[in-house]
Amino acid sequence: MARLVIRNVVVLVVPEVGECRVEEARDIHVQDDRIVAVTPTGSQPGSQLDGRPGGDEPEVVDGSGLLAVPGLVNSHTHSPMVMMRGAAEDLAIEDWFNRRVWPMEVNLTPERVRVGARLACAEMLLGGVTTFVDHYFHADQIAAAAVETGIRADLAPTYFSSTEQDLIAAFDVTRELRELHPRITASLGPHATYTVSDDDLRRTAEIARAEGFRVHLHAAETDGQTQASIDKHGVTPVQVLERTGVLDAGALIAHGCGIREPDLAILERYADRTAVASCPKVYLKLAMGEVTPIKGLLKAGVKVGVGTDGAAVHNTLDVWEAIRMVALTQKQRENDAEWMTLSDTLRLATRGSAAAAGLSRQVGVLEPGYQADIALVDLSAPHNQPLHDPRAAFVYSVRAADVVTVLVAGTVVVRDRELTTMDLQEVLADAQSLAHTLVDLSAGGSIQHYNP
Amino acid sequence: MARLVIRNVVVLVVPEVGECRVEEARDIHVQDDRIVAVTPTGSQPGSQLDGRPGGDEPEVVDGSGLLAVPGLVNSHTHSPMVMMRGAAEDLAIEDWFNRRVWPMEVNLTPERVRVGARLACAEMLLGGVTTFVDHYFHADQIAAAAVETGIRADLAPTYFSSTEQDLIAAFDVTRELRELHPRITASLGPHATYTVSDDDLRRTAEIARAEGFRVHLHAAETDGQTQASIDKHGVTPVQVLERTGVLDAGALIAHGCGIREPDLAILERYADRTAVASCPKVYLKLAMGEVTPIKGLLKAGVKVGVGTDGAAVHNTLDVWEAIRMVALTQKQRENDAEWMTLSDTLRLATRGSAAAAGLSRQVGVLEPGYQADIALVDLSAPHNQPLHDPRAAFVYSVRAADVVTVLVAGTVVVRDRELTTMDLQEVLADAQSLAHTLVDLSAGGSIQHYNP
Repeated sequence: MARLVIRNVVVLVVPEVGECRVEEARDIHVQDDRIVAVTPTGSQPGSQLDGRPGGDEPEVVDGSGLLAVPGLVNSHTHSPMVMMRGAAEDLAIEDWFNRRVWPMEVNLTPERVRVGARLACAEMLLGGVTTFVDHYFHADQIAAAAVETGIRADLAPTYFSSTEQDLIAAFDVTRELRELHPRITASLGPHATYTVSDDDLRRTAEIARAEGFRVHLHAAETDGQTQASIDKHGVTPVQVLERTGVLDAGALIAHGCGIREPDLAILERYADRTAVASCPKVYLKLAMGEVTPIKGLLKAGVKVGVGTDGAAVHNTLDVWEAIRMVALTQKQRENDAEWMTLSDTLRLATRGSAAAAGLSRQVGVLEPGYQADIALVDLSAPHNQPLHDPRAAFVYSVRAADVVTVLVAGTVVVRDRELTTMDLQEVLADAQSLAHTLVDLSAGGSIQHYNP
Repeated sequence: MARLVIRNVVVLVVPEVGECRVEEARDIHVQDDRIVAVTPTGSQPGSQLDGRPGGDEPEVVDGSGLLAVPGLVNSHTHSPMVMMRGAAEDLAIEDWFNRRVWPMEVNLTPERVRVGARLACAEMLLGGVTTFVDHYFHADQIAAAAVETGIRADLAPTYFSSTEQDLIAAFDVTRELRELHPRITASLGPHATYTVSDDDLRRTAEIARAEGFRVHLHAAETDGQTQASIDKHGVTPVQVLERTGVLDAGALIAHGCGIREPDLAILERYADRTAVASCPKVYLKLAMGEVTPIKGLLKAGVKVGVGTDGAAVHNTLDVWEAIRMVALTQKQRENDAEWMTLSDTLRLATRGSAAAAGLSRQVGVLEPGYQADIALVDLSAPHNQPLHDPRAAFVYSVRAADVVTVLVAGTVVVRDRELTTMDLQEVLADAQSLAHTLVDLSAGGSIQHYNP
């Protein structure tokens, strides 16, 4: 049994309700993939160590001067899109899809997706992200990259309503992914309410209920989409999710900026199995007009997490940046500087994102029994000093580059700002050599047309 | 004569109008404090070098794999407020001023301001900021920190309408600062239209005109302030600036989120000597309801720059973050993803901020004749790769930690991410030892009351 102790660290504590706080001078004891105890530095953890206190000496990670936080969860992304970073700028959502992204995605191949996913995993791990919730094509390749790099992932193979064959293939990959590795979970991934028919959403929901999958999809991304749905079908996207059984099966809704007041009452009925992922940098950059109505969603009991969406629009997979944008844009949206406080934000970023990943009893909290997914952050640089409040540093001043050491499932995957699981220069070289193939539009065509 | 060459670097080119671009494989030739030539790598710069090509060998900075950008300009800050970083969270503007910041500022002493300013200069230089435009108390101490650390600054000693003695002291310090050092300029610093009387603004404007100073002040920070000004005085803050002669003298207006449509016609008349500094992270965090109307200001010919405001609200002095927030919030404000493009944003961040600093013919452009204020940025890390567009990296993915080397006035002040001019550990230790004295409210009192 592998044992590890993070010695003499400051621990961020995020209770289910109330104020977050830090506890100084703690040891975090890890056995195999789990946290087994958090004790005052130097004291014995007692019986939590499975009755083997006299066993092998544990590996020691020196946490002096560092803040231990739950490894970050990126609750909605399309990781291989890092290959298109910076290649679709200054466009509104229609042109972004129809003139750039969907034409570029004609170029997807398993190899290109794998190379992109490896780069994405490198970026996320170095920035303290230990879990990502993905929605993309060739998800088996993304899974392989996740397994190789040591990160945790929930993967939804993307599909549109097209051929019967494509649908069945997506379902089968989802089933296979679930069996692949302890760090990999899988969800069903219909693209959106406007690209997948109600019949196919019904079929998705039936499989989800029968086989215990969640459904991860885009819905009510903008208020324009909601209005278009009402105009064309007489119902909001959330009503579509209800009548097709997707909400009953359990959904992770990406974005939801177009969720309207009456939708909240619907979502409340399925709150125990519904989550929404908010990625506000994207909403501002695409001038979508709204951000996710987080206050109303939380009041309805729906879990809300934070994500980056794909780097073809967010430009980074930096979850610190995404968390900060949630705090800032929610204060702005509600016209209330006292809302989305430090504690509100930290809870969303940890417990909320873990729930959005379908892992609320596994990750997002530094307590015994949870997976040892931990980021150690150095707050000693000038931009975090003096340190009146580490919680404020987490939300408003920390940079991804302040992450020093990262554990996933008890394994050190980043040590002293270096990846332990992969050769970063090789990953970068592969991405650079293939980058031009992704953005080449000379073949023409498009994988889909945006017309919600 | 000191010579220096930055060899084999990619150079960001920001024309006055049109698209920005990068030029690969360039040498930047520096003599003393100025750029004298930018040439293809390896070619001779010719006669620009003052006719001394055969002189001493220049110092060589290897720019391979790096992007050279004009040193960033922080066009509005209160640098010593880093001492209160994280100590005034989750508050609306009234409580932020009246319950936290102005009561804390009872504790200001020359030493505490000096220590804070040194830390601020360290943070800014390490993040590629080569000029800051400051507005604070004990400005002589800030000047000393700027001179010591090698950064460039425009300093405005802050004053309220209080005693005759205070006003005269502020005017005298401004005059002294102007004579201090080639890297230091000075502006007159009345706090705001709501804390300085019209009579004192008139007197300020007279001195400014007579002695060639600009006036740096807060005005129309929120639309609430504008409405309060109309309710109390029958005029907008911009009209106050006009009738007191401040606009005629030449003003740098901080924030201006409450500038209304009719104010733009007034500002247009003084556009050749008016600038506005926008710090949007602050506007969202304080839930101020508006951001700076940059589109209208630019149309009126007014220069607009980017700033961080003080770290007691912005939490960092990270100008990259401030630039990104300008791009995102301007797209949001105008509901137009095709506005505030990469080129628009880069121009604002370089030429615009330089103009806001009153240094438009000295800094902000990498061309012969300009000061050699240069940041070299490493775009090779995963979060910037693959690099389809370095301009997009500048605006949407670069982190301050990607800055490797910084020159101010031809002197290397940051080399391989380390300050050359100061002992960072000493600066941090001084700040940490005094931090508690700044946030101590036990003495009671307040330096001012917010009631615009």
